[in-house]
Amino acid sequence: MTTHVALTARAFGASGFILADVEDKSIKENIERVVADWGGTFSFDMGVPWKKAIAEWKTNRGLVVHLTMYGQNIADRDLVSKIRALQRDIMVVVGSQKVPGELYSEKFSDYNISVGAQPHSEVAALTIFLDRLFKGRELLKEFENARIKVLPSRRGKNLSRTQSRAI
Amino acid sequence: MTTHVALTARAFGASGFILADVEDKSIKENIERVVADWGGTFSFDMGVPWKKAIAEWKTNRGLVVHLTMYGQNIADRDLVSKIRALQRDIMVVVGSQKVPGELYSEKFSDYNISVGAQPHSEVAALTIFLDRLFKGRELLKEFENARIKVLPSRRGKNLSRTQSRAI
Repeated sequence: MTTHVALTARAFGASGFILADVEDKSIKENIERVVADWGGTFSFDMGVPWKKAIAEWKTNRGLVVHLTMYGQNIADRDLVSKIRALQRDIMVVVGSQKVPGELYSEKFSDYNISVGAQPHSEVAALTIFLDRLFKGRELLKEFENARIKVLPSRRGKNLSRTQSRAI
Repeated sequence: MTTHVALTARAFGASGFILADVEDKSIKENIERVVADWGGTFSFDMGVPWKKAIAEWKTNRGLVVHLTMYGQNIADRDLVSKIRALQRDIMVVVGSQKVPGELYSEKFSDYNISVGAQPHSEVAALTIFLDRLFKGRELLKEFENARIKVLPSRRGKNLSRTQSRAI
Protein backbone atom coordinates (compact mmCIF):
# COMPACT_ATOMS: atom_id res chain seq x y z
CA MET A 1 0.00 0.00 0.00
CA THR A 2 2.78 2.47 0.88
CA THR A 3 4.44 1.77 -2.47
CA HIS A 4 1.15 2.55 -4.22
CA VAL A 5 0.82 5.82 -2.32
CA ALA A 6 4.37 6.86 -3.22
CA LEU A 7 4.02 5.88 -6.90
CA THR A 8 0.72 7.70 -7.10
CA ALA A 9 2.28 10.80 -5.55
CA ARG A 10 5.01 10.71 -8.21
CA ALA A 11 2.71 9.98 -11.14
CA PHE A 12 0.29 12.74 -10.15
CA GLY A 13 2.88 15.46 -9.86
CA ALA A 14 4.35 15.45 -6.34
CA SER A 15 8.05 16.13 -6.07
CA GLY A 16 8.82 13.80 -3.22
CA PHE A 17 7.60 11.48 -0.51
CA ILE A 18 8.29 11.17 3.20
CA LEU A 19 7.51 7.87 4.88
CA ALA A 20 7.15 9.15 8.44
CA ASP A 21 8.23 7.22 11.54
CA VAL A 22 8.97 4.02 9.64
CA GLU A 23 11.97 2.76 7.68
CA ASP A 24 11.41 0.30 4.86
CA LYS A 25 14.30 -0.29 2.51
CA SER A 26 12.38 -2.41 0.04
CA ILE A 27 9.86 0.38 -0.58
CA LYS A 28 12.67 2.89 -0.98
CA GLU A 29 14.43 0.64 -3.50
CA ASN A 30 11.21 0.07 -5.43
CA ILE A 31 10.57 3.79 -5.75
CA GLU A 32 14.15 4.60 -6.66
CA ARG A 33 14.07 1.95 -9.37
CA VAL A 34 10.89 3.43 -10.82
CA VAL A 35 12.45 6.91 -10.81
CA ALA A 36 15.62 5.62 -12.50
CA ASP A 37 13.59 3.84 -15.19
CA TRP A 38 10.69 6.20 -15.71
CA GLY A 39 12.47 9.51 -15.24
CA GLY A 40 11.96 12.79 -13.48
CA THR A 41 13.14 13.69 -10.02
CA PHE A 42 11.38 12.44 -6.94
CA SER A 43 12.80 12.47 -3.44
CA PHE A 44 12.15 9.64 -1.00
CA ASP A 45 12.83 10.03 2.71
CA MET A 46 11.85 7.77 5.55
CA GLY A 47 12.07 7.31 9.28
CA VAL A 48 11.55 10.98 10.15
CA PRO A 49 9.16 11.36 13.08
CA TRP A 50 5.95 12.85 11.71
CA LYS A 51 5.93 15.85 14.05
CA LYS A 52 9.46 16.70 13.07
CA ALA A 53 8.70 16.43 9.35
CA ILE A 54 5.75 18.79 9.70
CA ALA A 55 7.62 21.22 11.95
CA GLU A 56 10.46 21.49 9.42
CA TRP A 57 7.98 21.97 6.59
CA LYS A 58 6.28 24.80 8.44
CA THR A 59 9.59 26.44 9.28
CA ASN A 60 10.07 26.78 5.53
CA ARG A 61 6.62 28.39 5.17
CA GLY A 62 5.16 25.22 3.72
CA LEU A 63 1.45 24.48 3.89
CA VAL A 64 0.19 21.23 5.39
CA VAL A 65 -2.92 19.61 3.94
CA HIS A 66 -4.21 16.56 5.76
CA LEU A 67 -6.50 14.33 3.75
CA THR A 68 -9.12 12.71 5.93
CA MET A 69 -12.64 11.44 5.54
CA TYR A 70 -13.70 13.91 8.26
CA GLY A 71 -12.54 17.17 6.72
CA GLN A 72 -14.10 19.80 4.47
CA ASN A 73 -15.27 18.25 1.22
CA ILE A 74 -12.99 18.89 -1.74
CA ALA A 75 -16.14 18.90 -3.88
CA ASP A 76 -16.34 22.55 -2.80
CA ARG A 77 -14.16 23.69 -5.70
CA ASP A 78 -13.25 27.00 -4.05
CA LEU A 79 -11.24 25.10 -1.48
CA VAL A 80 -8.55 23.90 -3.88
CA SER A 81 -8.55 27.22 -5.77
CA LYS A 82 -7.87 29.01 -2.49
CA ILE A 83 -5.03 26.65 -1.65
CA ARG A 84 -3.55 26.98 -5.13
CA ALA A 85 -3.72 30.76 -4.90
CA LEU A 86 -1.55 30.73 -1.79
CA GLN A 87 1.37 29.64 -3.99
CA ARG A 88 3.05 27.84 -1.14
CA ASP A 89 4.79 24.48 -1.13
CA ILE A 90 2.29 21.88 -0.04
CA MET A 91 2.82 18.81 2.09
CA VAL A 92 -0.07 16.41 1.66
CA VAL A 93 -0.47 14.11 4.62
CA VAL A 94 -2.25 10.79 4.29
CA GLY A 95 -2.27 8.16 6.97
CA SER A 96 -2.99 4.55 7.37
CA GLN A 97 -6.12 3.75 9.36
CA LYS A 98 -5.08 5.24 12.69
CA VAL A 99 -3.87 8.81 12.42
CA PRO A 100 -2.89 10.63 15.64
CA GLY A 101 -5.67 13.00 16.75
CA GLU A 102 -3.18 15.86 17.07
CA LEU A 103 -2.79 15.92 13.31
CA TYR A 104 -6.25 17.49 13.04
CA SER A 105 -5.21 20.52 15.09
CA GLU A 106 -4.02 23.89 13.82
CA LYS A 107 -0.61 23.20 15.24
CA PHE A 108 -0.03 20.55 12.59
CA SER A 109 -2.48 20.82 9.69
CA ASP A 110 -3.50 23.98 7.87
CA TYR A 111 -6.36 22.17 6.17
CA ASN A 112 -8.25 18.96 6.84
CA ILE A 113 -9.80 17.97 3.56
CA SER A 114 -12.04 15.06 2.71
CA VAL A 115 -12.44 13.53 -0.71
CA GLY A 116 -16.11 12.71 -0.47
CA ALA A 117 -17.45 11.58 2.87
CA GLN A 118 -17.21 7.82 2.44
CA PRO A 119 -14.55 5.34 3.49
CA HIS A 120 -12.24 4.47 0.59
CA SER A 121 -8.50 4.65 0.21
CA GLU A 122 -5.64 7.04 0.93
CA VAL A 123 -4.51 6.39 -2.64
CA ALA A 124 -7.85 7.61 -3.98
CA ALA A 125 -7.80 10.67 -1.72
CA LEU A 126 -4.27 11.62 -2.77
CA THR A 127 -5.12 11.06 -6.42
CA ILE A 128 -8.09 13.41 -6.39
CA PHE A 129 -6.35 16.09 -4.36
CA LEU A 130 -3.37 16.21 -6.74
CA ASP A 131 -5.60 15.96 -9.79
CA ARG A 132 -7.66 18.95 -8.63
CA LEU A 133 -4.58 20.91 -7.60
CA PHE A 134 -2.91 20.42 -10.99
CA LYS A 135 -6.20 20.60 -12.93
CA GLY A 136 -5.64 17.26 -14.62
CA ARG A 137 -2.51 18.49 -16.38
CA GLU A 138 -0.32 16.13 -14.36
CA LEU A 139 -1.50 13.30 -16.62
CA LEU A 140 0.32 14.85 -19.56
CA LYS A 141 3.54 15.56 -17.67
CA GLU A 142 6.74 14.44 -19.38
CA PHE A 143 9.31 12.85 -17.09
CA GLU A 144 12.86 13.81 -18.05
CA ASN A 145 15.59 11.28 -18.69
CA ALA A 146 13.24 8.34 -18.77
CA ARG A 147 14.72 5.03 -19.87
CA ILE A 148 11.28 3.57 -20.38
CA LYS A 149 8.26 5.22 -21.93
CA VAL A 150 4.80 3.97 -22.74
CA LEU A 151 3.63 4.49 -26.30
CA PRO A 152 -0.15 4.78 -25.81
CA SER A 153 -2.01 2.13 -27.73
CA ARG A 154 -5.57 0.97 -28.28
CA ARG A 155 -4.50 -2.66 -28.07
CA GLY A 156 -1.59 -4.39 -26.39
CA LYS A 157 1.53 -3.07 -24.72
CA ASN A 158 4.02 -0.76 -26.37
CA LEU A 159 7.09 0.36 -24.48
CA SER A 160 10.06 2.24 -25.81
CA ARG A 161 13.35 1.72 -24.04
CA THR A 162 15.62 4.61 -24.81
CA GLN A 163 18.80 3.15 -23.35
CA SER A 164 19.79 -0.07 -21.72
CA ARG A 165 19.63 0.18 -18.00
CA ALA A 166 22.92 0.90 -16.27
CA ILE A 167 23.22 -1.19 -13.16
CA MET B 1 -5.33 -3.68 -1.78
CA THR B 2 -8.45 -5.44 -3.12
CA THR B 3 -10.49 -3.95 -0.28
CA HIS B 4 -9.23 -0.49 -1.22
CA VAL B 5 -10.19 -1.05 -4.85
CA ALA B 6 -13.70 -2.17 -3.88
CA LEU B 7 -14.25 0.67 -1.39
CA THR B 8 -13.00 3.17 -3.95
CA ALA B 9 -15.37 1.74 -6.56
CA ARG B 10 -18.28 2.20 -4.15
CA ALA B 11 -17.28 5.68 -2.94
CA PHE B 12 -16.77 6.92 -6.49
CA GLY B 13 -20.13 5.80 -7.80
CA ALA B 14 -19.87 2.21 -9.02
CA SER B 15 -22.84 -0.01 -8.30
CA GLY B 16 -20.96 -3.22 -7.64
CA PHE B 17 -17.72 -5.14 -7.64
CA ILE B 18 -16.65 -8.51 -9.01
CA LEU B 19 -13.53 -10.10 -7.58
CA ALA B 20 -12.69 -12.38 -10.49
CA ASP B 21 -11.18 -15.86 -10.14
CA VAL B 22 -10.54 -15.50 -6.42
CA GLU B 23 -12.70 -16.02 -3.34
CA ASP B 24 -11.92 -14.06 -0.20
CA LYS B 25 -14.54 -14.06 2.50
CA SER B 26 -12.83 -11.49 4.69
CA ILE B 27 -12.89 -8.92 1.89
CA LYS B 28 -16.54 -9.67 1.19
CA GLU B 29 -17.42 -9.24 4.85
CA ASN B 30 -15.49 -5.98 5.07
CA ILE B 31 -17.31 -4.53 2.10
CA GLU B 32 -20.71 -5.72 3.25
CA ARG B 33 -20.11 -4.17 6.67
CA VAL B 34 -19.23 -0.84 5.05
CA VAL B 35 -22.38 -0.98 2.92
CA ALA B 36 -24.54 -1.79 5.94
CA ASP B 37 -23.04 1.09 7.95
CA TRP B 38 -22.51 3.72 5.28
CA GLY B 39 -25.54 3.07 3.13
CA GLY B 40 -26.45 2.73 -0.51
CA THR B 41 -26.54 -0.44 -2.51
CA PHE B 42 -23.39 -2.12 -3.75
CA SER B 43 -23.13 -5.67 -5.01
CA PHE B 44 -20.10 -7.82 -4.27
CA ASP B 45 -19.44 -11.02 -6.20
CA MET B 46 -16.37 -13.18 -6.23
CA GLY B 47 -14.86 -16.31 -7.66
CA VAL B 48 -16.31 -15.86 -11.15
CA PRO B 49 -13.70 -16.67 -13.82
CA TRP B 50 -12.76 -13.39 -15.50
CA LYS B 51 -13.65 -14.54 -19.00
CA LYS B 52 -17.06 -15.64 -17.87
CA ALA B 53 -17.73 -12.36 -16.06
CA ILE B 54 -16.85 -10.38 -19.17
CA ALA B 55 -18.79 -12.67 -21.51
CA GLU B 56 -21.93 -12.28 -19.39
CA TRP B 57 -21.49 -8.53 -19.26
CA LYS B 58 -21.22 -8.36 -23.03
CA THR B 59 -24.25 -10.57 -23.48
CA ASN B 60 -26.20 -7.85 -21.70
CA ARG B 61 -24.77 -5.21 -24.07
CA GLY B 62 -22.41 -3.94 -21.39
CA LEU B 63 -19.24 -2.05 -22.29
CA VAL B 64 -15.87 -3.22 -20.96
CA VAL B 65 -13.22 -0.63 -20.14
CA HIS B 66 -9.84 -2.00 -19.16
CA LEU B 67 -7.64 0.42 -17.25
CA THR B 68 -3.99 -0.13 -18.05
CA MET B 69 -0.84 1.96 -18.19
CA TYR B 70 -0.53 1.00 -21.88
CA GLY B 71 -3.84 2.26 -23.24
CA GLN B 72 -5.08 5.52 -24.71
CA ASN B 73 -4.54 8.39 -22.29
CA ILE B 74 -7.65 9.52 -20.46
CA ALA B 75 -6.20 13.04 -20.56
CA ASP B 76 -7.80 13.14 -24.02
CA ARG B 77 -11.11 14.39 -22.65
CA ASP B 78 -13.06 13.31 -25.70
CA LEU B 79 -12.45 9.71 -24.78
CA VAL B 80 -14.58 9.73 -21.64
CA SER B 81 -17.23 11.94 -23.27
CA LYS B 82 -17.53 9.39 -26.06
CA ILE B 83 -17.88 6.54 -23.59
CA ARG B 84 -20.45 8.46 -21.55
CA ALA B 85 -22.45 9.24 -24.67
CA LEU B 86 -22.84 5.53 -25.42
CA GLN B 87 -25.13 5.30 -22.38
CA ARG B 88 -24.23 1.69 -21.79
CA ASP B 89 -23.52 -0.07 -18.53
CA ILE B 90 -19.78 -0.05 -17.98
CA MET B 91 -17.59 -2.74 -16.46
CA VAL B 92 -14.27 -1.24 -15.44
CA VAL B 93 -11.52 -3.84 -15.28
CA VAL B 94 -8.42 -3.30 -13.19
CA GLY B 95 -5.87 -5.94 -12.50
CA SER B 96 -3.09 -6.65 -10.14
CA GLN B 97 0.37 -6.55 -11.71
CA LYS B 98 -0.03 -9.42 -14.13
CA VAL B 99 -3.07 -9.12 -16.34
CA PRO B 100 -3.64 -11.79 -19.02
CA GLY B 101 -2.61 -10.49 -22.46
CA GLU B 102 -5.95 -11.54 -23.93
CA LEU B 103 -7.67 -8.83 -21.93
CA TYR B 104 -6.20 -6.25 -24.31
CA SER B 105 -7.96 -7.78 -27.31
CA GLU B 106 -11.26 -6.75 -28.87
CA LYS B 107 -12.77 -9.99 -27.78
CA PHE B 108 -12.64 -8.87 -24.16
CA SER B 109 -12.11 -5.12 -23.83
CA ASP B 110 -13.89 -2.39 -25.75
CA TYR B 111 -11.41 0.21 -24.55
CA ASN B 112 -7.92 0.06 -23.09
CA ILE B 113 -7.46 3.32 -21.23
CA SER B 114 -4.46 4.62 -19.36
CA VAL B 115 -4.56 7.18 -16.61
CA GLY B 116 -1.33 8.96 -17.45
CA ALA B 117 1.54 6.88 -18.73
CA GLN B 118 3.41 6.22 -15.50
CA PRO B 119 3.33 3.30 -13.12
CA HIS B 120 1.11 4.03 -10.12
CA SER B 121 -1.85 2.17 -8.66
CA GLU B 122 -5.04 0.48 -9.84
CA VAL B 123 -6.81 2.45 -7.11
CA ALA B 124 -5.62 5.73 -8.62
CA ALA B 125 -6.59 4.63 -12.13
CA LEU B 126 -10.07 3.59 -11.04
CA THR B 127 -10.50 6.81 -9.07
CA ILE B 128 -9.71 9.05 -12.02
CA PHE B 129 -11.80 7.05 -14.49
CA LEU B 130 -14.89 7.19 -12.28
CA ASP B 131 -14.27 10.82 -11.38
CA ARG B 132 -14.09 11.79 -15.07
CA LEU B 133 -17.09 9.62 -15.94
CA PHE B 134 -19.26 11.18 -13.25
CA LYS B 135 -17.72 14.67 -13.64
CA GLY B 136 -16.78 14.89 -9.98
CA ARG B 137 -20.42 14.72 -8.89
CA GLU B 138 -19.87 11.35 -7.24
CA LEU B 139 -18.22 13.14 -4.34
CA LEU B 140 -21.52 14.72 -3.39
CA LYS B 141 -23.55 11.54 -3.69
CA GLU B 142 -25.85 10.75 -0.77
CA PHE B 143 -25.93 7.09 0.26
CA GLU B 144 -29.38 5.99 1.32
CA ASN B 145 -30.14 4.33 4.64
CA ALA B 146 -26.76 5.11 6.12
CA ARG B 147 -26.30 4.34 9.79
CA ILE B 148 -23.13 6.42 9.91
CA LYS B 149 -22.50 9.76 8.28
CA VAL B 150 -19.59 12.14 8.38
CA LEU B 151 -20.36 15.70 9.32
CA PRO B 152 -17.63 17.59 7.45
CA SER B 153 -15.45 19.59 9.79
CA ARG B 154 -12.40 21.83 9.63
CA ARG B 155 -10.98 20.23 12.76
CA GLY B 156 -11.44 16.84 14.35
CA LYS B 157 -13.84 14.02 13.63
CA ASN B 158 -17.61 14.35 13.59
CA LEU B 159 -19.77 11.35 12.91
CA SER B 160 -23.51 11.05 13.21
CA ARG B 161 -24.93 7.64 13.97
CA THR B 162 -28.52 7.54 12.94
CA GLN B 163 -29.40 4.21 14.51
CA SER B 164 -27.64 1.64 16.58
CA ARG B 165 -26.23 -1.13 14.48
CA ALA B 166 -28.32 -4.27 14.27
CA ILE B 167 -26.10 -7.31 14.48
